[in-house]
Amino acid sequence: MKVAVVGVGLIGGSIGLAARQRLGAHVSGYDPSAAARETAIARGAVIEAHGSVEAAVEGADFAFVAAPVQSLAAMVSSVLEVAADSCVVTDVGSVKRAVAGAIEDPRFIGGHPLAGAETSGVEHARADLFQDATWYLTPTTVTRGVAYERLHRLITRIGAWPTAIEPDTHDVVMASVSHLPHVLANVLVAQAARVLSAEGERLPATGPSFRDVTRVAGANSVVWGGIYRANADALVAAIDDMVGRLTSFRDQLASGDDAGIREWNESAREDRRRLLESDLAGGEVHELRVLVPNRPGIVAEIALALGRATIDIVDMGLYPSSGSHGTVALWIRGGVVAEQAERLVRDLGLEVARA
Amino acid sequence: MKVAVVGVGLIGGSIGLAARQRLGAHVSGYDPSAAARETAIARGAVIEAHGSVEAAVEGADFAFVAAPVQSLAAMVSSVLEVAADSCVVTDVGSVKRAVAGAIEDPRFIGGHPLAGAETSGVEHARADLFQDATWYLTPTTVTRGVAYERLHRLITRIGAWPTAIEPDTHDVVMASVSHLPHVLANVLVAQAARVLSAEGERLPATGPSFRDVTRVAGANSVVWGGIYRANADALVAAIDDMVGRLTSFRDQLASGDDAGIREWNESAREDRRRLLESDLAGGEVHELRVLVPNRPGIVAEIALALGRATIDIVDMGLYPSSGSHGTVALWIRGGVVAEQAERLVRDLGLEVARA
Repeated sequence: MKVAVVGVGLIGGSIGLAARQRLGAHVSGYDPSAAARETAIARGAVIEAHGSVEAAVEGADFAFVAAPVQSLAAMVSSVLEVAADSCVVTDVGSVKRAVAGAIEDPRFIGGHPLAGAETSGVEHARADLFQDATWYLTPTTVTRGVAYERLHRLITRIGAWPTAIEPDTHDVVMASVSHLPHVLANVLVAQAARVLSAEGERLPATGPSFRDVTRVAGANSVVWGGIYRANADALVAAIDDMVGRLTSFRDQLASGDDAGIREWNESAREDRRRLLESDLAGGEVHELRVLVPNRPGIVAEIALALGRATIDIVDMGLYPSSGSHGTVALWIRGGVVAEQAERLVRDLGLEVARA
Repeated sequence: MKVAVVGVGLIGGSIGLAARQRLGAHVSGYDPSAAARETAIARGAVIEAHGSVEAAVEGADFAFVAAPVQSLAAMVSSVLEVAADSCVVTDVGSVKRAVAGAIEDPRFIGGHPLAGAETSGVEHARADLFQDATWYLTPTTVTRGVAYERLHRLITRIGAWPTAIEPDTHDVVMASVSHLPHVLANVLVAQAARVLSAEGERLPATGPSFRDVTRVAGANSVVWGGIYRANADALVAAIDDMVGRLTSFRDQLASGDDAGIREWNESAREDRRRLLESDLAGGEVHELRVLVPNRPGIVAEIALALGRATIDIVDMGLYPSSGSHGTVALWIRGGVVAEQAERLVRDLGLEVARA
């Protein structure tokens, strides 16, 4: 198996290391920077490194485009132009609408691993960066089912949890759970710096909560400038919502509404418990076999229906037949969850059997 | 040495464990809850546990009051009423103005260790909770110098870094670096929960940055309700400042001001670097010997002057004499920092010698 990594930074380099160490893949890399190419080779993230996309993608079974958000669509197009018909092409961008809107190709599936670090650059790449991370995928009605299945399996084998999502939903969710926290981290350090100078050059000693909240402050300007811009509308809405909530809490505080503050805090505690619980689902793996018509988009439809209900597909297999129907096998963790998945798939008008 | 812990929760219990394990102290505890007293004994956080403050504080050299912020002043007063003249009394509350304004006693020094955890209760107490933590102290002009010296040394010996600060400054700084991050964590989880229900019961998979930022969401309502209330004015000001900064970023984003966003991000990166640096000061320890007049408040004055410049006093010693002057020895880490400390102490009109 040959995997091409288009852009060998922290994410691209970590995909390369994981694909080599866990799958024994032959990994080739593209990067415009000669220094990055050299480091990628030295770190073992790639076996061959090229200054041309075409050379890197030649003969690849998978191509991962890891470029800043603002150049993603153009880079994915270049890769699709030179990639083989059987090659699965994906990207790792933190915003999904722009690239999903620009690219319509059966070989392409947008993607976004929820992994990263304070660091950047291939010198910090690690094979286990994606271990147990959610990896969003945005299949569409033109996506080839077998491409989705292969990408799903590859991502599972490098340790992550693939989950299908619509690009719009992805961007709205990320505005709240990733982009806004980055903005807040920046604002908090700026505010602490102001307090510092107002209090006579005192550098305030900070506690663990401040360090946690501001860990991501001042993340790479090129990367994050692009993300903020690409998701500007959703992020503006998330900021407006946050300002409204902060103002409402501020008014409770200023008017001494202790009961309101306690209720607000208890409700946050409950919200957090639910969010943590959703990260901790477990149980035995059940197999569902779904009889599907042989038409494009059916795999995307199933994956998205389960993704919407946050049901993780542990593994999937496609068994096409020469007739009008084939079979999709889905492995789902937990008995109750598997039953829910079965209902959701039936609701799509499909026949399901428990294996 | 006998240490009394008035309130054996996470913080009080951890002080007890640290004092026993690191200083071999005899630790007695007070708690209104019989269950907490039993657990404190079982965990070894205290040797004796009482349902009466007087019994717990009897014969103590130090008393640490670890009660919710709203009952601190009353509890500190009760302790001072029954404590011996030689006993040093302190508290561990997260807000300092109220207690500093209510108590005027040469034996009392307000305190606040920047340590905590997601957990609460003596069952989670640990002897190393304060290792390398900043421990704020708020000595005043009525504080007995020898009380400050003894408390400073005890805190150093349980692994923390005592640093003197004015109560007002403390509360303003904490509003920005601790209380506001807690508020933001609550608002972020509430927002994520809203996105969740708006997107069809989807529980959004969250990445590491979201988990970091929301770790403290929904912290204990009694404890945090009291903190928010006690620091309401400073926290309202910090929220107003944050809303202003968020709105300004939002407008840059909505108008596509990429250069402004980049500059804002770079400046946050720089702010964070400076904040981290201030946590990492190191070097050889230098001794300064300061000739001081024998009058109350002089030790507080020196400690606060160095605290304002964020100079940590590694250790201090008081050498009173029978005349009108005595000597205060200060141990300061780093040559440049020691020189700065020397200048600051001279600026107070005092004579300094390098040992």
